[in-house]
Amino acid sequence: MAINGQGPSPGRLASVYSEVQTSRLNHPLPLPSVLKSSFKVVDGPPSSAAGNPEEIAKLFPCLFGQPSASLVPTVADPSESSGALKIGVVLSGGQAPGGHNVICGIFDYLQDRAKGSTLYGFRGGPAGIMKCKYVELSPEFIYPYRNQGGFDMICSGRDKIETPEQFKQAEETVSKLDLDGLVVIGGDDSNTNACLLAENFRLKNMKTRVIGCPKTIDGDLKCKEVPTSFGFDTACKIYAEMIGNVMTDARSTGKYYHFVRLMGRAASHITLECALQTHPNITIIGEEVSAKKQTLKNVTDYITNVICKRAELGYNYGVILIPEGLIDFIPEVQTLIAELNEILANDVVDQDGVWKKKLTQQSFILFEFLPQAIQEQLLLERDPHGNVQVAKIETEKMLISMVETELEKRKLEGKYAANFKGQSHFFGYEGRCGLPTNFDSTYCYALGYGAAALLQYGKTGLISSVGNLSCPVGKWSVGGTALTALMDVERRHGKFKPVIKKAMVELEGAPFRAFASEREEGTKEQIHQPWPHSVHRPWIQRHQPHSEA
Amino acid sequence: MAINGQGPSPGRLASVYSEVQTSRLNHPLPLPSVLKSSFKVVDGPPSSAAGNPEEIAKLFPCLFGQPSASLVPTVADPSESSGALKIGVVLSGGQAPGGHNVICGIFDYLQDRAKGSTLYGFRGGPAGIMKCKYVELSPEFIYPYRNQGGFDMICSGRDKIETPEQFKQAEETVSKLDLDGLVVIGGDDSNTNACLLAENFRLKNMKTRVIGCPKTIDGDLKCKEVPTSFGFDTACKIYAEMIGNVMTDARSTGKYYHFVRLMGRAASHITLECALQTHPNITIIGEEVSAKKQTLKNVTDYITNVICKRAELGYNYGVILIPEGLIDFIPEVQTLIAELNEILANDVVDQDGVWKKKLTQQSFILFEFLPQAIQEQLLLERDPHGNVQVAKIETEKMLISMVETELEKRKLEGKYAANFKGQSHFFGYEGRCGLPTNFDSTYCYALGYGAAALLQYGKTGLISSVGNLSCPVGKWSVGGTALTALMDVERRHGKFKPVIKKAMVELEGAPFRAFASEREEGTKEQIHQPWPHSVHRPWIQRHQPHSEA
Repeated sequence: MAINGQGPSPGRLASVYSEVQTSRLNHPLPLPSVLKSSFKVVDGPPSSAAGNPEEIAKLFPCLFGQPSASLVPTVADPSESSGALKIGVVLSGGQAPGGHNVICGIFDYLQDRAKGSTLYGFRGGPAGIMKCKYVELSPEFIYPYRNQGGFDMICSGRDKIETPEQFKQAEETVSKLDLDGLVVIGGDDSNTNACLLAENFRLKNMKTRVIGCPKTIDGDLKCKEVPTSFGFDTACKIYAEMIGNVMTDARSTGKYYHFVRLMGRAASHITLECALQTHPNITIIGEEVSAKKQTLKNVTDYITNVICKRAELGYNYGVILIPEGLIDFIPEVQTLIAELNEILANDVVDQDGVWKKKLTQQSFILFEFLPQAIQEQLLLERDPHGNVQVAKIETEKMLISMVETELEKRKLEGKYAANFKGQSHFFGYEGRCGLPTNFDSTYCYALGYGAAALLQYGKTGLISSVGNLSCPVGKWSVGGTALTALMDVERRHGKFKPVIKKAMVELEGAPFRAFASEREEGTKEQIHQPWPHSVHRPWIQRHQPHSEA
Repeated sequence: MAINGQGPSPGRLASVYSEVQTSRLNHPLPLPSVLKSSFKVVDGPPSSAAGNPEEIAKLFPCLFGQPSASLVPTVADPSESSGALKIGVVLSGGQAPGGHNVICGIFDYLQDRAKGSTLYGFRGGPAGIMKCKYVELSPEFIYPYRNQGGFDMICSGRDKIETPEQFKQAEETVSKLDLDGLVVIGGDDSNTNACLLAENFRLKNMKTRVIGCPKTIDGDLKCKEVPTSFGFDTACKIYAEMIGNVMTDARSTGKYYHFVRLMGRAASHITLECALQTHPNITIIGEEVSAKKQTLKNVTDYITNVICKRAELGYNYGVILIPEGLIDFIPEVQTLIAELNEILANDVVDQDGVWKKKLTQQSFILFEFLPQAIQEQLLLERDPHGNVQVAKIETEKMLISMVETELEKRKLEGKYAANFKGQSHFFGYEGRCGLPTNFDSTYCYALGYGAAALLQYGKTGLISSVGNLSCPVGKWSVGGTALTALMDVERRHGKFKPVIKKAMVELEGAPFRAFASEREEGTKEQIHQPWPHSVHRPWIQRHQPHSEA
């Protein structure tokens, strides 16, 4: 084992593991049938793009239009077996449970199917590629991370390979290590970056091929061929258990409303999935708020109405789920922020509030509606560019304060007679590094095993795609989807930039429809009786292979 | 099943349970051997009190000095078997995992050993006794709560039975229901209350006997005969898992210091136990801070020093555990609060800060040392009596802010060159209502089964005591300890009040000594390598009966 460069992690020691960790180490990982025998890689029809194919074609002249690939069983042909490979792997962006198993999948494929191969782990994310900081992975080094959470085997980072100079650094590294392939494990941005790298290497006639893997607990990187990103299943189960505990607590005490903010800034998948698993009293889905063009006052009123209705029934407790990115879904908030940034940049914010006259009427009303603490936060805490920091607002505390004010008003009007006590929670980091579920463990292993297969068969610019996930593992499909097929362009600084669009909660999709129908039809029962931990949902397309292998 | 009074919980339906919940429902609960065959109750020597026995004797003229009781095996004697009993049970105070199993233990004992008995569950805590709100418990009603978390079977409350009128209400209820016995499941205050009730019933020649059960996740209700309170084991394991996840997250990202505040206001047992289970980078134990008469500045400096030392080694991440009650352990903070309350009650708090001249020098220095947000919170947010609300201070955020300021200073002095990013967490409610561990499930069942036995044998004023907990369940001892033996007096409003003293972390005890020795001897290694989930600790005196029964 050669260690090059200093990483923050000195490696794990399985000897100090807990019983649970130890039992997970040797948890068997079934493979899809196609990966257990001889297979060949079959190309599909030429692909296009998710939007603006002519622009994507310009951005990816080598790769645009390439077919997706499927692994299909074949009769063994010893002549086809290739020689040893040199592969690099990198973890990019925030952690998601299962990342270690993707690496194990790649490693085991190379051991099983390309004897004598070498796997390098780039340390600390894409910066590790640029700075050529890596570790050569050995069975002993990898073992303590099998089926374990976290990304600490090689650590992750948020750097991007963007400038011509950075691309050059990447070229130097892959040339120096003589890499046949690179696996990029990341979210939408990282996979876009992976595709740009693949295009660049191809353009320069370099042999290094690049395969992406879909990672993010937020669940917003998915499409037909990539039914889910890894980590989502584990994170939702961890959050759902914590929510279930808080619901039981609320029922037992009978006097608190728990406002739970859940990780997931861009899309509300986690909140929706947790709502389906736990049946809380109130759930706010950002995409619905946005589609219905709701204001902060609308959201506050909705919550307040349910609290009043429950008070009439004698229930003064409950649990309310809020997506981390709620504020970003409310157009009027965005307008207010823009106006505030303008005013703060150019005007004096006087104590008497004369400056407020510069706000449009809508923004003025919204600003006055905000709790004082939030008003102050918006005016005082600004980022290095002087901008208001929306991300720092603790939405759950803001909502508690606004609901409190609204309930006080209704009390004076004789419309509410109970006592409201809010408790705020943010469930975030605890879910990103938990022990991966059986699903995530197995799914990630197949993603990695499949990614290595794609590299061995000369593929580049694909994202590892494991499908048919509601069937037993044996029947899972394995292949790769052209990354350019997932892309659209966005105009940034006057230029077209390729982007993989984030998958939002679809209001016409099965999960949201199920949630909405229960919310409407079952209001009464649901309000009376939350069902903690009731997790069986037919539309959750993730087979949990706990009784197999 | 007769339901009297309206409770907030309409009862659980096992049909909507998750797989985990369902599998727990029928989890076998082994009983201590002595409870599996015929036994007799043997009295020990006369008891005294934990302090001021002469005052305790005056407060409990009937019960003071009574012996503790042990259950010992005997040859079956059918003539001894008593008739049917009428028993009431109440949950008092905050939730702790396992409470439902205490009730199941009482219920099953009555079914097994006193056929035809009735068990009433008082709803919503002691208020249920005073208002005679109860439910008659049946096998069907109880079943869905077996081995499940929460207190929602009959719910809990924080009312106390204190005034003569309230005692009268309690007398009326137990007379109306013709109760032979009452089991009070609660913490130190609730068990003191249970003893006062027992004394009162005995004094009035009423037949109702009272037995207490030791409950609190905080772990501060314990003594030689009661080695632990139930719920502590589960809560610590839940928190330790969350801390382990955050530690893995910190190692993977390499750029955050996570400040984790843990439940437990009066004593730091939870923080200490979690530190032993997870080996975080820094742990603050309130009792040590208090014993060493440390100031807030000392605590800040200690944390800052470790952060600087780690920075020199190249590590700019970590996890820091803080007990919820830290502030209460710092004498100078208490002094400042007292002075502030005095000033706020009598003086005008001017904008220019002239009022600060009224503070003593020590308090002035401390006040100026506090972050601005905390200063404002202390001055602005006050309780209905106008007092400063210490409990509302988010200690973890305050420490982040103070460490930040100190690090900025050291940066200017050239003593620190890295970047500090703090993340705050409070782990509280999630741990109170989780699924009880095998230990808590089994321990609680034995506590309840034993409590019913004590009532059947005519005992009153005892706390159910199950010991020998590091041995397999078969060898656990069962009995009852005189509640008066645990008591001391406190002077309140010119009167002596009986209190069961909270058990604090003992700096000479095995757990703290182990923690301290690892902290000193292993500083370097520990700082390099946190050991997530390393839970095997010989001094944890709780046998986990997972492979038995």
